[in-house]
Amino acid sequence: MIDLVGFDGDDTLWHSQEFYDRAQDEFEAILGRYVDLARDGLREALLDTERGNIKLFGYGAKGMTLSMIESAIELTEGRVQAQDIHRIVRLGKDVLAHPVELLPGIREAVEAVAREHRVVLITKGDLFHQEYKVARCGLADVFHRIEIVSEKDPAAYARLFREFDVTPDRFAMVGNSLRSDIAPVVELGGWGVYMPYHSTWSYETDTDFALNDRVIEVKGAEGIPAAIARMHTLSVSM
Amino acid sequence: MIDLVGFDGDDTLWHSQEFYDRAQDEFEAILGRYVDLARDGLREALLDTERGNIKLFGYGAKGMTLSMIESAIELTEGRVQAQDIHRIVRLGKDVLAHPVELLPGIREAVEAVAREHRVVLITKGDLFHQEYKVARCGLADVFHRIEIVSEKDPAAYARLFREFDVTPDRFAMVGNSLRSDIAPVVELGGWGVYMPYHSTWSYETDTDFALNDRVIEVKGAEGIPAAIARMHTLSVSM
Repeated sequence: MIDLVGFDGDDTLWHSQEFYDRAQDEFEAILGRYVDLARDGLREALLDTERGNIKLFGYGAKGMTLSMIESAIELTEGRVQAQDIHRIVRLGKDVLAHPVELLPGIREAVEAVAREHRVVLITKGDLFHQEYKVARCGLADVFHRIEIVSEKDPAAYARLFREFDVTPDRFAMVGNSLRSDIAPVVELGGWGVYMPYHSTWSYETDTDFALNDRVIEVKGAEGIPAAIARMHTLSVSM
Repeated sequence: MIDLVGFDGDDTLWHSQEFYDRAQDEFEAILGRYVDLARDGLREALLDTERGNIKLFGYGAKGMTLSMIESAIELTEGRVQAQDIHRIVRLGKDVLAHPVELLPGIREAVEAVAREHRVVLITKGDLFHQEYKVARCGLADVFHRIEIVSEKDPAAYARLFREFDVTPDRFAMVGNSLRSDIAPVVELGGWGVYMPYHSTWSYETDTDFALNDRVIEVKGAEGIPAAIARMHTLSVSM
């Protein structure tokens, strides 16, 4: 049976990636005035800088902004003007201040699941920004616990299972990232409800995890309660 | 009696502010080549920018770095060179990667207190950076719990008291910041051991809290166990 259901935050409860995408588009527009690099080349260069910085910065908009600034200086070999760097800082601020808008149907889905199971919110990234979003999402009261973690890997989930006092086979995670929400939970013996978002940061798609019978993919939030109910039945019969 | 003792992280367990001070000195050296502002003027301008950004950035080195960049662009009216902005980014990275060095005698003090009471680490700031420091401090195993919070105000401590299942009068907090470690705890009815550090960020000294009989000031870590023992006696006799 399923005792506890975890929900991811960014792009599972609320829109997030599209604000990062918008910042990325504007970053490319700024840099396009200095360098003759194809859009893909710019994108790849920034991702390389971000990958290199993640062990120092962690996830989130402040680290992205600093990586964009570094990338802009390196790609233009120092020619980028201070005013354009100021624009990049403002791109980061816009991401941090973006409105928190729930995905269609997710409120009803979380409430339906919460009537049958304990539900927890497990979100990754910058503590301050995640708390900001949790406080504004209007769903915080539905969750029994809210966990903001710096990384979603097997070690992090294993620690959470101990804190929640749940065994992995009684836990299901709902999220849009195979790498962060689904793969580590299934690896530990749990269940996953995979709800892809229309846009995913390249970093999060970097996984060789393949869907299997511990994972149900849903097209939208309205499919979540039935997926959890199906897992509940499957796990009881095991 | 005292049931639970909280320890602050930055500048209570490990050195921190001096790395920020070093970054500040280098920032001033960079800006000094562009503007004819006294050292105090530069410092005040940066603090203003940081204060204005804190509701969006929260605490920590990444927010400081972005505020330094903004401040540099504004103070030089856009004349600052990209390579100098890159130097500022590297100042932030140096702060994030600084070695974690315990304060003299703090290991022995924490271990002595832990023999008599439950001890928790309550540290504020960037989740990723704080976890980095906790992992490297070599003291993590001594603590019963580690809490990384985005703000240390009465609401945050009240939430922690509920989670720790402790009443404020049975809780003592050890820290170097009157504003963040001592004032909110004493306001809620708890106890404080105030251990000033040789350098404190101006933001943290902005408090009108006055020492009172719920607070014991110690000169160094070796005074902490006796201070806790004294509070224990005081609180039992109340």
